[in-house]
Amino acid sequence: MFYHTKRLQYEAKPEQPDAVYAHKLQELIGGAWGEMTVTMQYLFQGWNCRIEGKYKDMIMDIATEEIGHVEMLSTMVARLLEGAPSDQTAKAVQDPALAAVVGGMDFQQAIVGGGGALPSDSNGYPWNGRYIIASGNLLADFRANLTAEAQGRLQTARLYHMTDDPGVKDMLKFNLARDTMHQNQWLAAIEELKKDGVEDTVVPDDLLDEEHREHASSLWHLSDGESSDQGGWAGGTAPDGNHEFQYNANPEPLGGMASAPKPEDHLYATYSEEGMLKKAAKQVKNTVT
Amino acid sequence: MFYHTKRLQYEAKPEQPDAVYAHKLQELIGGAWGEMTVTMQYLFQGWNCRIEGKYKDMIMDIATEEIGHVEMLSTMVARLLEGAPSDQTAKAVQDPALAAVVGGMDFQQAIVGGGGALPSDSNGYPWNGRYIIASGNLLADFRANLTAEAQGRLQTARLYHMTDDPGVKDMLKFNLARDTMHQNQWLAAIEELKKDGVEDTVVPDDLLDEEHREHASSLWHLSDGESSDQGGWAGGTAPDGNHEFQYNANPEPLGGMASAPKPEDHLYATYSEEGMLKKAAKQVKNTVT
Amino acid sequence: MFYHTKRLQYEAKPEQPDAVYAHKLQELIGGAWGEMTVTMQYLFQGWNCRIEGKYKDMIMDIATEEIGHVEMLSTMVARLLEGAPSDQTAKAVQDPALAAVVGGMDFQQAIVGGGGALPSDSNGYPWNGRYIIASGNLLADFRANLTAEAQGRLQTARLYHMTDDPGVKDMLKFNLARDTMHQNQWLAAIEELKKDGVEDTVVPDDLLDEEHREHASSLWHLSDGESSDQGGWAGGTAPDGNHEFQYNANPEPLGGMASAPKPEDHLYATYSEEGMLKKAAKQVKNTVT
Amino acid sequence: MFYHTKRLQYEAKPEQPDAVYAHKLQELIGGAWGEMTVTMQYLFQGWNCRIEGKYKDMIMDIATEEIGHVEMLSTMVARLLEGAPSDQTAKAVQDPALAAVVGGMDFQQAIVGGGGALPSDSNGYPWNGRYIIASGNLLADFRANLTAEAQGRLQTARLYHMTDDPGVKDMLKFNLARDTMHQNQWLAAIEELKKDGVEDTVVPDDLLDEEHREHASSLWHLSDGESSDQGGWAGGTAPDGNHEFQYNANPEPLGGMASAPKPEDHLYATYSEEGMLKKAAKQVKNTVT
Amino acid sequence: MFYHTKRLQYEAKPEQPDAVYAHKLQELIGGAWGEMTVTMQYLFQGWNCRIEGKYKDMIMDIATEEIGHVEMLSTMVARLLEGAPSDQTAKAVQDPALAAVVGGMDFQQAIVGGGGALPSDSNGYPWNGRYIIASGNLLADFRANLTAEAQGRLQTARLYHMTDDPGVKDMLKFNLARDTMHQNQWLAAIEELKKDGVEDTVVPDDLLDEEHREHASSLWHLSDGESSDQGGWAGGTAPDGNHEFQYNANPEPLGGMASAPKPEDHLYATYSEEGMLKKAAKQVKNTVT
Amino acid sequence: MFYHTKRLQYEAKPEQPDAVYAHKLQELIGGAWGEMTVTMQYLFQGWNCRIEGKYKDMIMDIATEEIGHVEMLSTMVARLLEGAPSDQTAKAVQDPALAAVVGGMDFQQAIVGGGGALPSDSNGYPWNGRYIIASGNLLADFRANLTAEAQGRLQTARLYHMTDDPGVKDMLKFNLARDTMHQNQWLAAIEELKKDGVEDTVVPDDLLDEEHREHASSLWHLSDGESSDQGGWAGGTAPDGNHEFQYNANPEPLGGMASAPKPEDHLYATYSEEGMLKKAAKQVKNTVT
Repeated sequence: MFYHTKRLQYEAKPEQPDAVYAHKLQELIGGAWGEMTVTMQYLFQGWNCRIEGKYKDMIMDIATEEIGHVEMLSTMVARLLEGAPSDQTAKAVQDPALAAVVGGMDFQQAIVGGGGALPSDSNGYPWNGRYIIASGNLLADFRANLTAEAQGRLQTARLYHMTDDPGVKDMLKFNLARDTMHQNQWLAAIEELKKDGVEDTVVPDDLLDEEHREHASSLWHLSDGESSDQGGWAGGTAPDGNHEFQYNANPEPLGGMASAPKPEDHLYATYSEEGMLKKAAKQVKNTVT
Repeated sequence: MFYHTKRLQYEAKPEQPDAVYAHKLQELIGGAWGEMTVTMQYLFQGWNCRIEGKYKDMIMDIATEEIGHVEMLSTMVARLLEGAPSDQTAKAVQDPALAAVVGGMDFQQAIVGGGGALPSDSNGYPWNGRYIIASGNLLADFRANLTAEAQGRLQTARLYHMTDDPGVKDMLKFNLARDTMHQNQWLAAIEELKKDGVEDTVVPDDLLDEEHREHASSLWHLSDGESSDQGGWAGGTAPDGNHEFQYNANPEPLGGMASAPKPEDHLYATYSEEGMLKKAAKQVKNTVT
Repeated sequence: MFYHTKRLQYEAKPEQPDAVYAHKLQELIGGAWGEMTVTMQYLFQGWNCRIEGKYKDMIMDIATEEIGHVEMLSTMVARLLEGAPSDQTAKAVQDPALAAVVGGMDFQQAIVGGGGALPSDSNGYPWNGRYIIASGNLLADFRANLTAEAQGRLQTARLYHMTDDPGVKDMLKFNLARDTMHQNQWLAAIEELKKDGVEDTVVPDDLLDEEHREHASSLWHLSDGESSDQGGWAGGTAPDGNHEFQYNANPEPLGGMASAPKPEDHLYATYSEEGMLKKAAKQVKNTVT
Repeated sequence: MFYHTKRLQYEAKPEQPDAVYAHKLQELIGGAWGEMTVTMQYLFQGWNCRIEGKYKDMIMDIATEEIGHVEMLSTMVARLLEGAPSDQTAKAVQDPALAAVVGGMDFQQAIVGGGGALPSDSNGYPWNGRYIIASGNLLADFRANLTAEAQGRLQTARLYHMTDDPGVKDMLKFNLARDTMHQNQWLAAIEELKKDGVEDTVVPDDLLDEEHREHASSLWHLSDGESSDQGGWAGGTAPDGNHEFQYNANPEPLGGMASAPKPEDHLYATYSEEGMLKKAAKQVKNTVT
Repeated sequence: MFYHTKRLQYEAKPEQPDAVYAHKLQELIGGAWGEMTVTMQYLFQGWNCRIEGKYKDMIMDIATEEIGHVEMLSTMVARLLEGAPSDQTAKAVQDPALAAVVGGMDFQQAIVGGGGALPSDSNGYPWNGRYIIASGNLLADFRANLTAEAQGRLQTARLYHMTDDPGVKDMLKFNLARDTMHQNQWLAAIEELKKDGVEDTVVPDDLLDEEHREHASSLWHLSDGESSDQGGWAGGTAPDGNHEFQYNANPEPLGGMASAPKPEDHLYATYSEEGMLKKAAKQVKNTVT
Repeated sequence: MFYHTKRLQYEAKPEQPDAVYAHKLQELIGGAWGEMTVTMQYLFQGWNCRIEGKYKDMIMDIATEEIGHVEMLSTMVARLLEGAPSDQTAKAVQDPALAAVVGGMDFQQAIVGGGGALPSDSNGYPWNGRYIIASGNLLADFRANLTAEAQGRLQTARLYHMTDDPGVKDMLKFNLARDTMHQNQWLAAIEELKKDGVEDTVVPDDLLDEEHREHASSLWHLSDGESSDQGGWAGGTAPDGNHEFQYNANPEPLGGMASAPKPEDHLYATYSEEGMLKKAAKQVKNTVT
């Protein structure tokens, strides 16, 4: 169960409104790598965690923090939209700076949200549940979390350079710092899984003996760039300590021809030996005559 | 530009049809972590790679391989659907095994695909472009790739146990092996970035001095589990070698009250000091009388 | 900012696993009217509320409660999936009850979720941000909230009859009660808005004098059912106390012909007076000859 | 079955083209609360209505009207796009008013629609079937309809202020009036259901005795705002006349700890008492040595 | 503007309920090629048609008919769901036929639709506006219409074989006939466009002289199948009478290397000549030492 | 299996960057009729083709070509974005041309793509798998392919006029030419199917005798336009040579009343003869008193 305090985790006060920036900031709320994603991803991972104790507790700590990040960003967007020229008609525009705003606003923030944030990204596409993963396998999921924090900080850093507003920049400096922390945190958690002996390097930590091991270490050279054999992935011991990288310089297919079986009659897939035969017969006849 | 050979990268021949398994296998084709995802993710990353040479070449090698994986799985699905009881009515079913099939088929594989694979997942949801990321930052993207290969191998391993068919299992043993290789490959590529000095640990490798450093290393304890301070993430040096983890056991909000500014009149957000005053006045009057 | 306790708002313990019911229960988690919807809808409404005080505070109270409902349902789903026959092949099924389970499971709960709940509905479609509304107008939004609680309780009531499990039913009895409370709560809040004089009956409470008043009270009879004039909507004073209902028994269109203007050349919309003329000329010529 | 007349229900003639406004107007066509939504929602409700007579007939009357509203708006959009500077390149722009247009157009209206309306909203997101509800329960659905007309009129009112064009404003005055009518109509229909004794206040009108009644009337105070107990929802008789509101000022969770059961082996969820034990053993050993 | 009669265009009465078939039939309602698609596609095409007269009138005739097809199918689905065992629990199933039904039902038809049709396809995915096209170019759009009627009749034919119910089959015989008519109708309309001289063979009928004509007639042989030169597309005069087909047996790329330019600094795309240089220097040093 | 060469099929070099055009060009990459669609559509059709030989081989040739078109366009977008003013704030804009760019950019190309193309359309909506069809019936699918090439060339032609850049225009001249070729190619393939006797005119080529033939040739006149009887579709022999077109000038419905059956109790659909009776009784009583 959850409790809420109306105070924000960190201050979210722009010095001035900026409707175009409010449009861009939607990416950090409802984008694939935005705060709604980490909120929901960590909540479902926490609820679904099968080991009681430090892992589950840590996931729930950070999951709960992330709800508050959506709150900070939504508050910031509402404040950036104060006085937005929503009902300024394009043909009345006299000033280039206003023209850029009128052209670059998120119309739905006004028409749908009444001057507030939306659960959508910076292209107006709604956040959806396929963005998140909670697979039950902590190594696979911590890698997903590390990725989310990396992509999220990358986007925050890009947005940091798209504004001059000291208030916005102040909040983003907090967000950037939290993303730094969280990248370190998931890296540490990945190490912890290994130290605890619950997960190793390859996910999942099983079937390594059953799979076709001869295909588990070679890079197939299928594009004609000439340097793919020069990286650490083309030779030497693999990071799992268990395979030797190899380079397959001239790869040939190992399987037979791709083909689909004769279709069921009632599905009306095109298939007709007779049709082909009729055609062939006609051609023969034509040739003969 | 691309060339194609009709031979499959690896054989994809089931011993017997199995329509329910063909339904489940859709996850590996059009799921969030399926082969369409890695195909498109690696292609866009390769085309968008800003460093010529080994990284770009390696990405294109593996991107090109993945198209062939969609091909293998689609071929397998078509073969698993051979003779599927698509037009068997439910009320005619006499046999439990057939009942499970009739109930568990993907109806669209017959009605829409004519007995073939679809670009959808095992719940019939279509693959979409928001599944992939090509951010231009190789460390952020290689972490996404490592995640995709981990989640993909995890799902393949789960599906491996959902069939007894030797032909299916043989193909999955190849797929499992490739996923092992690719996990190692992206791990090696992440190390390579560090060795080459082009990326470090935190993504992006910048703004670390500008962000609010005091908030870049503490775990906020916001859920009442009692063990989150027992992991490597709660103390000691962080994986980036640059921060000391801390534990914020009784976190207080740092910001002010969340609030949205007075709305624009023409957006009709509910806001009325007068309304509230009228009400208050009425209450006063009532009290007085 | 938010805090979390690991204790559930109410107990969520099934007596026995039931994988098909776990599939159905997804509707209450990630469906259009599920708990993720009310969670996000109330959070965005609260953050975007322009009147400080009782309305905003009440919205945040209930918003915070709803996060915990997602938690309860997700926990219930994980427990219902314990021992689910995920890797049971269809052709091995000997028992009708098992056949129904094998055919009716949500494959993604196993393959993607590892035996846990997903942010999707009972057809596997992911929850998305377009389900929610936070318009800033409290009357419009409270009606949306009342609707959500009504549709939500309706679905919960339907699901209540789809199980015999006492543990599941016990939790649903709590959920049903909360939905009853919340329907009453939003109805009371709608009355409160009127009492406080901040909103009236028609949303938004403006432009009533500017709109074409003569069209604001008549039912246009456009389908040939014979009874639509027999309801309270076809005569008498309208609920807003401001209009008299009328019945337009034989409605005629008031506008001119629908037509689209001549297209821009470079858009290649089909448009050719010449083409038509050429054709006409040819026909004339043919007739003449 | 349906018949069509080419005359519009009301005139839809702008005085001048306005491509940015054509972009915004998409919200009323294909948005979540646009005319496609009410069209489809009322049609499915009407077809699925289980009581013959006045309710079904009224629903079909209004459903049929709404198809014509999509027609009016689509016609308006095509006319607003006449002469739109679709092939004006950004770098050739000399005039701020034109800059605002070039930046703010809906590119798909030109590239995809050839200068016509699209079944999408003002952010280019396509209308979809999850927007509508036809549950079979008329009270639940009439509340949804009332909400749709309220949100729809709210958006229309906002758009009314975003144009100066007399022709556009004239059409919107008609639309606003119809939305007023329809809000009143659904309010009247909700009253009618109660008068007829077919539905009461809580949806559905059942299980009130079976649900946990002790939880059906209290507001849980889970956010620290101090005023949520000051509204009509925190005390007194509830709108259904059947419950007394209560205020739970210091709510404690009623359930046990959230937890997920031991996972199935083949799903590879992280779970390892042994792993934890091994780790502990190692630590002990280290300490000892 | 539209009028409605409650009588169906054709009868829609199953002899017996069949809940699994009701699930499958959703494809014809809300699938990509279902009746909602042709309804909306033809309506938008008609409203957006730039030539007054026979084309526009014919499009509106058929568009209006299609609304009635959604009505017929929705009515059929509601009737097929009569008495559906929605609250039958899986573990109580004793009979294989019932097991197939319990496993194969569309849960949302009960939980969300209350026993009625949904605006979704047979996998529960909602209909959406990206399915339709109304480009303004009649030849391009009539080809889309012909395709829709072809795919639609194909799916109807498949579904025709999935039922034994005489009432269902009777309705489908009507639908099949209409689809035959409509395929012929769009083929005739395509011919008419040519006869009238408004469109020719290639869409759009322009830029043929401006495009790189030398690339407008050759088949690039990029897959190693050996027969692609044996069809009418590999030689002879093309259908537009304006090009001679050619076969490019050993195609070579015509462009330069794919590459992306140096990124902007603030986007943090990985790019570092220095990084690479440092690495190279280190390698040189290592070699030297 | 696939091979890749890094050389582009045709050159993709703009003379100058143009960020707004890069936004528009997304339509040709990830739009419904963009290159991702034809790539995936042809690949799935080829893999699923049931006739070995010329058809399958030709499909695979063109499918493989299309992957390279996505490559060309993605490369072009990255180059058009070089130096895009992503971090230019709106309020600093002094120049109308820049204002148009700042307002009209695709924010995600910077924030998400780091200055590269996205798998989305020009409104930022992601490409998805429901755009494609691979039904197994070659005639139905070749019509879909012809449509895709027609709509694709139409959009390319529109975009051709939206730029003055010689490098962009040069590439589009190649694309236009390929689209001309591919329209001819699919038209030739449709003829070939007929010549070979494997498909005829109506899809699927079956059930023509079983369907209600009396309804397979008449145009129902359901809209009041006066010219729909003047086209070739209203009389004479139909294109299949097998039906005589007819014109149903005053169509009447053939079916009975649309109605839904009595609902199941536990679904709580509103249905109450008693309710209605009670109401009637009350009215009688009121009248009497």
